Amino acid sequence: MNYAARYKKFQHIMTEHRLHGYVVVHPANLRYLCGYTGSNGLLLVSDYSPVFFTDGRYIEQAREEVKGARVVIAKGALFTEATKVISRRGLSDIGFEADHVPVAVASRMQQVSPKKIKWKPTSALVERQRLVKDADELSLIADAVELGADAYQEAVATIRPGVPESEIAGQLELSARRRGAEGMAFDTIVVAGKRAALPHGRASAVPIPPRGFVVVDSGVILRGYCSDMTRTLHVGRVSRVERQWYDALLGAQFAAIAAVAPGRRAAEVDAAARQALRKAKLDRYFTHSTGHGVGLEVHEAPRLGKGQDERLEPGMVITIEPGIYIPGKGGIRIEDMVVVTARGADILTPVTKELVEL
Amino acid sequence: MNYAARYKKFQHIMTEHRLHGYVVVHPANLRYLCGYTGSNGLLLVSDYSPVFFTDGRYIEQAREEVKGARVVIAKGALFTEATKVISRRGLSDIGFEADHVPVAVASRMQQVSPKKIKWKPTSALVERQRLVKDADELSLIADAVELGADAYQEAVATIRPGVPESEIAGQLELSARRRGAEGMAFDTIVVAGKRAALPHGRASAVPIPPRGFVVVDSGVILRGYCSDMTRTLHVGRVSRVERQWYDALLGAQFAAIAAVAPGRRAAEVDAAARQALRKAKLDRYFTHSTGHGVGLEVHEAPRLGKGQDERLEPGMVITIEPGIYIPGKGGIRIEDMVVVTARGADILTPVTKELVEL
Repeated sequence: MNYAARYKKFQHIMTEHRLHGYVVVHPANLRYLCGYTGSNGLLLVSDYSPVFFTDGRYIEQAREEVKGARVVIAKGALFTEATKVISRRGLSDIGFEADHVPVAVASRMQQVSPKKIKWKPTSALVERQRLVKDADELSLIADAVELGADAYQEAVATIRPGVPESEIAGQLELSARRRGAEGMAFDTIVVAGKRAALPHGRASAVPIPPRGFVVVDSGVILRGYCSDMTRTLHVGRVSRVERQWYDALLGAQFAAIAAVAPGRRAAEVDAAARQALRKAKLDRYFTHSTGHGVGLEVHEAPRLGKGQDERLEPGMVITIEPGIYIPGKGGIRIEDMVVVTARGADILTPVTKELVEL
Repeated sequence: MNYAARYKKFQHIMTEHRLHGYVVVHPANLRYLCGYTGSNGLLLVSDYSPVFFTDGRYIEQAREEVKGARVVIAKGALFTEATKVISRRGLSDIGFEADHVPVAVASRMQQVSPKKIKWKPTSALVERQRLVKDADELSLIADAVELGADAYQEAVATIRPGVPESEIAGQLELSARRRGAEGMAFDTIVVAGKRAALPHGRASAVPIPPRGFVVVDSGVILRGYCSDMTRTLHVGRVSRVERQWYDALLGAQFAAIAAVAPGRRAAEVDAAARQALRKAKLDRYFTHSTGHGVGLEVHEAPRLGKGQDERLEPGMVITIEPGIYIPGKGGIRIEDMVVVTARGADILTPVTKELVEL
């Protein structure tokens, strides 16, 4: 990873915001800027060389992982220790992550700071930089997606009527681990039959019914980066109307992918999926947004939903995941990860979207 | 669960803190007070009947889960909606969870509030109530501990030289799922041989070596409540010095359990473990604290460490988990969950602490 380039870019953002220094504590932002993966870390970025603070439990880990920053082992609270360095360097306007620092921590931080230091609440400064992935990140994300897809394919082989949803989720997670995943990006969702109509359902002890849709939504973490994919299969014979639903939803997913292009607003991609479903009179069953960014976090910016004016840029990685949920009948969701390219979108998820009947 | 009794007790705590109302957003605190298990929820407690706010995604879930509170589906931010109700009721001093509310949220909350509302940052008010478990909770915790122990026993059968640590962790997690766990309380730790000397190590792709200690630290979540247990096994022949280490550590664990009693300070329990290890000249290898509370969160108050003056009370549930980590040699940690009783402590974890040789 080119951490030096990331620091440099972030220093530029700091200058734009008239900040002399910036304090990072959010784990994904720490990992992005300096490589640290533990908990309780603080990175101070300024025009001077960066300083990383942690406590005694993480000495070894910080020394091994942290790149481009001096490591300081703090005796007390990390903010207190950082304040000392900020004072020594004579810095005054210091940004912090207002979306991640709790009121109680900010208040203690004010108390221990000399008056000269002005703490400036900021929102999503590092997150904004993380929107567009660099080449290293794109390669890591592709690896995570590949691993996630392999684990999914292995687990799908265990789906049959009578097997509990949670058993399939468990098999998927075991397969991911065996393939080297650090962990899962979120609790694996396996919902079958009428339960597939629950967009927020999770794998339960309920067995797969003799017939109906099965939604499998899963993601792994590999070297820090997340994958996220959903496929919907069918056990037993597909009825004509179920086939129509599936085809309409798949059409909406393709329409949304076709709408992905640099300069396009996030809301336009969402609208493309919604419009395709409207034609099939199924839009009222599509009750969530079309997708979200993925990277070091499984849900990050941009959000592809109504009213989202964020413009897409090459190097953004997003999910395209329309779904329809028909109460009492079942549900279908199809989700790929795609990279925004100079011309449009590359689909990362290497798994068929043809309706698989089991 | 007796949610009515919990509200009543919390209203009493509010009055003690001269608060007219209190706003709860931390998921474990929401689950404790009203049973809600989703994300994005807000509970307003006051002398009037409680009101619960969430967004449209959680209508069904909130209606099904939330007990003793009226459910309101908010169009915008939950704090904004709550502020309207607070105003209508003419309340002024409103507490909020300063350890959980980020600066950015608190600032928006101030902006939308009429001047009459005074927001009061508070720390650990609900957490304090959660310290002592009621009968319902003790029963749920015992069930979680039982399930976690069964999953552990099943996974231990797969330990042998050459098997990757992550495979054993995966088997444990699959077994937990099959037995009905909602999920794991934390990433399962399996560290073997020299890696057992890493107190914060996690299961890796490294295979179990032909001989040495294997530390397995795992916990499940069942109906919201967490379990947490650690056992250390040995593959291959145990050397005399390894046996001495193990016996000394087990002695320290027993000494700490023996020190648990109502009225005893948390630091005294920690000191008991440390003193036992000092006698064996191993105290310098014990680099963390002796234990922590467990309940709806796997790490909650009290902390059993140096300088912790919290007094133990009957109904508290804590871990007792001394460990020694000898660089280049290996490590040993033994952890039980115990309930503080009127007379001392009851051990919950139903797994032998005799040194198991594989």
